[in-house]
Amino acid sequence: MTVKDVCEILKSKNNIEILTHASPDGDTLGCGYALCLALQSMGKNARVIVEKMPQKFKFLTKGVKEQDFQGEFVVSVDIAALSLLGSNAEKYAKIIDLCIDHHGSNSIEIKDKYVVADAAAACEIIYEIIIELGVKITKEIANCLYTGISTDTGCFRFSNTTAQTHRIAADLMEAGCDFEIINKNMFDTKSKARVELEKNLYDTMEYFADGKGAIMCISLDMLEKLNISGDEIEGIENIPRLIEGVLLGITMKEREKNSYKVSVRTNECINASEFCAKFGGGGHIAASGCKINGDYETVKSKLIKAAEEFI
Amino acid sequence: MTVKDVCEILKSKNNIEILTHASPDGDTLGCGYALCLALQSMGKNARVIVEKMPQKFKFLTKGVKEQDFQGEFVVSVDIAALSLLGSNAEKYAKIIDLCIDHHGSNSIEIKDKYVVADAAAACEIIYEIIIELGVKITKEIANCLYTGISTDTGCFRFSNTTAQTHRIAADLMEAGCDFEIINKNMFDTKSKARVELEKNLYDTMEYFADGKGAIMCISLDMLEKLNISGDEIEGIENIPRLIEGVLLGITMKEREKNSYKVSVRTNECINASEFCAKFGGGGHIAASGCKINGDYETVKSKLIKAAEEFI
Repeated sequence: MTVKDVCEILKSKNNIEILTHASPDGDTLGCGYALCLALQSMGKNARVIVEKMPQKFKFLTKGVKEQDFQGEFVVSVDIAALSLLGSNAEKYAKIIDLCIDHHGSNSIEIKDKYVVADAAAACEIIYEIIIELGVKITKEIANCLYTGISTDTGCFRFSNTTAQTHRIAADLMEAGCDFEIINKNMFDTKSKARVELEKNLYDTMEYFADGKGAIMCISLDMLEKLNISGDEIEGIENIPRLIEGVLLGITMKEREKNSYKVSVRTNECINASEFCAKFGGGGHIAASGCKINGDYETVKSKLIKAAEEFI
Repeated sequence: MTVKDVCEILKSKNNIEILTHASPDGDTLGCGYALCLALQSMGKNARVIVEKMPQKFKFLTKGVKEQDFQGEFVVSVDIAALSLLGSNAEKYAKIIDLCIDHHGSNSIEIKDKYVVADAAAACEIIYEIIIELGVKITKEIANCLYTGISTDTGCFRFSNTTAQTHRIAADLMEAGCDFEIINKNMFDTKSKARVELEKNLYDTMEYFADGKGAIMCISLDMLEKLNISGDEIEGIENIPRLIEGVLLGITMKEREKNSYKVSVRTNECINASEFCAKFGGGGHIAASGCKINGDYETVKSKLIKAAEEFI
């Protein structure tokens, strides 16, 4: 399929439902609301289907009209597999008509699939579609697309970022997107509970192997005491790796008494997957995990000993 | 002056010294080494004059040849005033021939000044000059320019970022710049001492005014115990403001016994300058400071009381 084919289909349809993935992030929601705004501006009925809208993304709905209609055509955005539909699976898994995505691994089996694997964010594809549809990029559309692009690239830092990512960002800046507010809310704001959690985690931080390794632990006690939500733990396992000189960073997360989920993040030439394999786990070169049973001190000693040998 | 005028002058000169400002940052150094590489590739003698090179910017010198020559022409880059020359003032303050800068407030009084105030980074101007000179943007030049642009815009987050900033970044990406490593080193890496400092600061954090205010304190004790350098304190006064819900964030820095430098950072509609004026200080709307004498508890109480009334 080409972008023109996608646009021909969209132009020919009405009463369109745009499906986002469960635990929605900035990219799937940015796609959803940008496309919805574009379709509504073409005089079509459209809505976005969201499992549960996180507070911090509510601004993306600005300008979207609530329309009363019976859905006739379903477009999925940024959904790599049907297993990611969450509670929407029952109603929508079998009636997706068009799939728009940027995951090379996309496993949704339907005829009309438009997957661009080198797009850093699915929002880059939606940008291309909106331009091809001849719809003006309004400030509201620009805010949606910028949010998807910025969150999926870690604000232009991750390796998926391309020259094209920056060129699209330039156009969105010219359309008046609120890049400063968006980035502040997406990247720079910490909840009070998160600050408290980090303080507690720093208290557990231990270095080993001449500072090339660092380990910290989130205990059940800590989570309970801080009454912390899943959102607020996001990215926490990156903390040890980002300390100067650390090549292998370990985060122990207590799951139940005497049972730990272990997240390993590495820099440069250290293979996290190989390390985790020693404990029956695995994953990617720079990000892997495993599960170890035992009390805190025993598990920690095992990990440090293995890591010292490994580094 | 136009960019063409600047290039005509540079083309006509040889034995060029490029002057950077004291406490050099990514932008002045990025300008310096990018321009030096470009001039050397044109067959000229050139060197960069740096007061004291920070370790983290040493990678910018890659590919620069050390040339033995007597300087005949001095170009200043990213230097807004002669007072910023540091220990280079004595030798260079009176012999600058060409000034290239992006500070609207530039106060250097010479004939040949090329100041582009809406450039987010002086590196944007150097990019324009290198293109006009007809020099190819090599990977090394791209790394220098990207570093200046990324550091001066907080990785495309600050309000000075423009569409043009992203368009230049796109070209630098195509030239093969190591954006991922650069951003990791500039933004994501914390020294062990910095982690320790943050932990100590979090311990002093107090909220007030229903969580709309936050205050923390760096004591002389803390700095001595952690043996921490100036570099590692950079940006620390932003911590309170970046906590969810906080509109006014205060950082007390003990300067000597019973004397505090106070940094105030605000969000949205709170005027930090007005607040600091209450204590004889001032600054910008979102970032101001003042000095208060007294013991820790007294100064803290004064600040909290004033802030509660102010919010």
